[in-house]
Amino acid sequence: MSDQDTPQATPNPRTAAPSDPEPSGPRLSRRRLFGVAGAGVALAGVGAAAGYAAGSSAGSAAARDGVVAFRGDRQAGIITPAQGRLHFVALDVTTPDPAAVRRLLQRWTLAAERMTAGLETTEGGAVGGNVQAPPADTGEALGLAASSLTLTFGIGASLFAKLGLDAQRPAALADLPAFTGDKLDPARSGGDLCIQACADDPQVAVHAVRNLVRMGFGTTSVRWSQLGFGRTSSTSTAQTTPRNLFGFKDGTNNLKAEEPAELDRHVWVQPGDGPDWMAGGSYLVARRIRMHIEIWDRTSLSEQEIIVGRTKGEGAPLGRAAEFDTADFSAKGADGEPVIATEAHIRLASAESLGGVKILRRGYNFVDGTDGQGHLDAGLFFIAFVRDPATQFVPMQRALSTKDVMMEYLEHTGSAVFACPPGLGPGSYWGQALFDA
Amino acid sequence: MSDQDTPQATPNPRTAAPSDPEPSGPRLSRRRLFGVAGAGVALAGVGAAAGYAAGSSAGSAAARDGVVAFRGDRQAGIITPAQGRLHFVALDVTTPDPAAVRRLLQRWTLAAERMTAGLETTEGGAVGGNVQAPPADTGEALGLAASSLTLTFGIGASLFAKLGLDAQRPAALADLPAFTGDKLDPARSGGDLCIQACADDPQVAVHAVRNLVRMGFGTTSVRWSQLGFGRTSSTSTAQTTPRNLFGFKDGTNNLKAEEPAELDRHVWVQPGDGPDWMAGGSYLVARRIRMHIEIWDRTSLSEQEIIVGRTKGEGAPLGRAAEFDTADFSAKGADGEPVIATEAHIRLASAESLGGVKILRRGYNFVDGTDGQGHLDAGLFFIAFVRDPATQFVPMQRALSTKDVMMEYLEHTGSAVFACPPGLGPGSYWGQALFDA
Repeated sequence: MSDQDTPQATPNPRTAAPSDPEPSGPRLSRRRLFGVAGAGVALAGVGAAAGYAAGSSAGSAAARDGVVAFRGDRQAGIITPAQGRLHFVALDVTTPDPAAVRRLLQRWTLAAERMTAGLETTEGGAVGGNVQAPPADTGEALGLAASSLTLTFGIGASLFAKLGLDAQRPAALADLPAFTGDKLDPARSGGDLCIQACADDPQVAVHAVRNLVRMGFGTTSVRWSQLGFGRTSSTSTAQTTPRNLFGFKDGTNNLKAEEPAELDRHVWVQPGDGPDWMAGGSYLVARRIRMHIEIWDRTSLSEQEIIVGRTKGEGAPLGRAAEFDTADFSAKGADGEPVIATEAHIRLASAESLGGVKILRRGYNFVDGTDGQGHLDAGLFFIAFVRDPATQFVPMQRALSTKDVMMEYLEHTGSAVFACPPGLGPGSYWGQALFDA
Repeated sequence: MSDQDTPQATPNPRTAAPSDPEPSGPRLSRRRLFGVAGAGVALAGVGAAAGYAAGSSAGSAAARDGVVAFRGDRQAGIITPAQGRLHFVALDVTTPDPAAVRRLLQRWTLAAERMTAGLETTEGGAVGGNVQAPPADTGEALGLAASSLTLTFGIGASLFAKLGLDAQRPAALADLPAFTGDKLDPARSGGDLCIQACADDPQVAVHAVRNLVRMGFGTTSVRWSQLGFGRTSSTSTAQTTPRNLFGFKDGTNNLKAEEPAELDRHVWVQPGDGPDWMAGGSYLVARRIRMHIEIWDRTSLSEQEIIVGRTKGEGAPLGRAAEFDTADFSAKGADGEPVIATEAHIRLASAESLGGVKILRRGYNFVDGTDGQGHLDAGLFFIAFVRDPATQFVPMQRALSTKDVMMEYLEHTGSAVFACPPGLGPGSYWGQALFDA
């Protein structure tokens, strides 16, 4: 049935219940019905934000189950306790017009704030609008809870030249150098913008990305997209340490939300670090790391533990008993060799070996079908937030890429760096400080 | 670090806590620790099943939270209330030796039964074995709950000729005919064997598939693999109807576990339908359906509802008020036209239009990154269980592929049919009746 077959100007009686005297009746009742999905969420702030002027809704919403505050000093989705599912999308801007991008960012921000509150992109967006128009919301999250959705926004280095904003580009937002063993696919790397959607329900994360992508038609197009499950790091002391697809607990020594001084030192961009618009933000480094799980699975447990530097079961540093025991990198075994091998992953990645470098990891496991060679295409979608990629991620990855035995089982297939601005004050929108600068 | 650098014959002191007098001590304690993960599950049956002789463990396990009985008259994962996440894998057999396949199926069955009970593939498989050998279990599900994992096994038509079993091939297990608009990718179609893993935690489903794939090295290789989220049908009256990526409730009129007579008629292969080994089983039809969500999203709500034949919000048949109201295909509107359009999806797919045909749907939504054209590669991984594909799926898909306006927004990119044998009695293994026949 084509558009020509469908009446476009008048309400279609097919969509009205025969027993209902008013064509708008059933639609209104559906609207009321789905209002229930968001009924637990205070909306005064959200509605008022439509004018970019009113106060924050985050305060009241944050206290409610499954709703993470959208506005605040920091963007959500960085030190927010890592949710279970990820949909990450990198987009390219298809226009040279900064004003068009600014308008999109304004619209995105409103929709993102609503979706993190468990609502449609606009009031009644899925089924409550004009039936002769495409719905403003695609609808697949109707009836689903907010699910701790966070939407974290970032800007890639390539955007600045494209929009004539070079003067505002932070020096820290540079392309990463090539690392030993990189097998980067350009189709899985880079991007002018990114949106990281994390939630406890994958359909909620997918719905959010899909609707933001849709709003971007004509201004942005999808460059690459990655789904993930099974967070591979904790970002709060309240969380247990999850396991990666090598079967090891991953991220035991990750920075945590409960360490504000460490976060200021290692994660949050400080005033004076670069352009003002990034102060309070953080740099997101994404690496798609294919794990050759089939080869890993053929190595002995002993070899695996030596490579990692931790026991597989408990996750304790070798030579210690419990996961959170401090690794003793100076301990020697009866044979005079270090208990934690010289080239063990945890030693190479440790602050001790890297002159104090720490990062906030927030990655996810993935399985993307098959590799066409009879194996699963599986691995780790590594995400880290750092104050400066050049002084934190680069030396760490340089050490790992040249010395870490684990690299025999890994292949870095995608790479990107994004500048994630600070959090949103009342009425402000994603990237506003950059565009206003 | 290569194997040559690692002592292979003696326990490595690096893996033993210095304070522990016995090298095996810490390993045993980890084993005990992780025994906790399965501590709630009665294991007498699982252990005894190692001899292929003892009674079923399913009875006791079924009553426990998050454990679906593995053995029974029917395979689990068909009328089991649809779990939230899917990892589906199709494998090709790489040997012509039926005995090798039989041995693999025996090993798979033991591991599958244990994993559905929330356990490792073998007792102590992840960290409790010989540290100088590769672990029997890959470990990433340690500490995770059983998560309602089901593992459903199927056999493709191509297996029979490969193993010289042509005489046992059911006539019903035929390749599907080509349908109008098919754009099937051979790399996403067919397969000698399949395993459908469904669970409430994707890491549990992925762990199960990954470990079974691993056990198959030398006998099977992965042909294709599909992850899914957001079940798109209910298979029990206790479940709410979920939404597909067109934003509509999907599967309202699905067959349900609570309709045993209907299931006998439409889902379960009856004695006399074909070879004895399939009596009590079902045929699984898988179709990877790319949904052009970007185009769909540009159609009006009215058009969408006319195409589907239901309201988007409530999911009611057009002209009725509530989701589970019976569709009135004869009702006419004030304009004399049918309230539910002649070519509406729900009319074309209805038992009324298809001479009584019904199917059990059990599909999942998917997003597989991007299509390289700036769009998300998203859709529905359609799974249906039927008594006979030729008389149920084929006429339904023929009607839909030629008349359903929704086809303008769909692209079938993968296709496969598998014969899923009946459930497992005590001590039996996947496919045993076929190999014994």
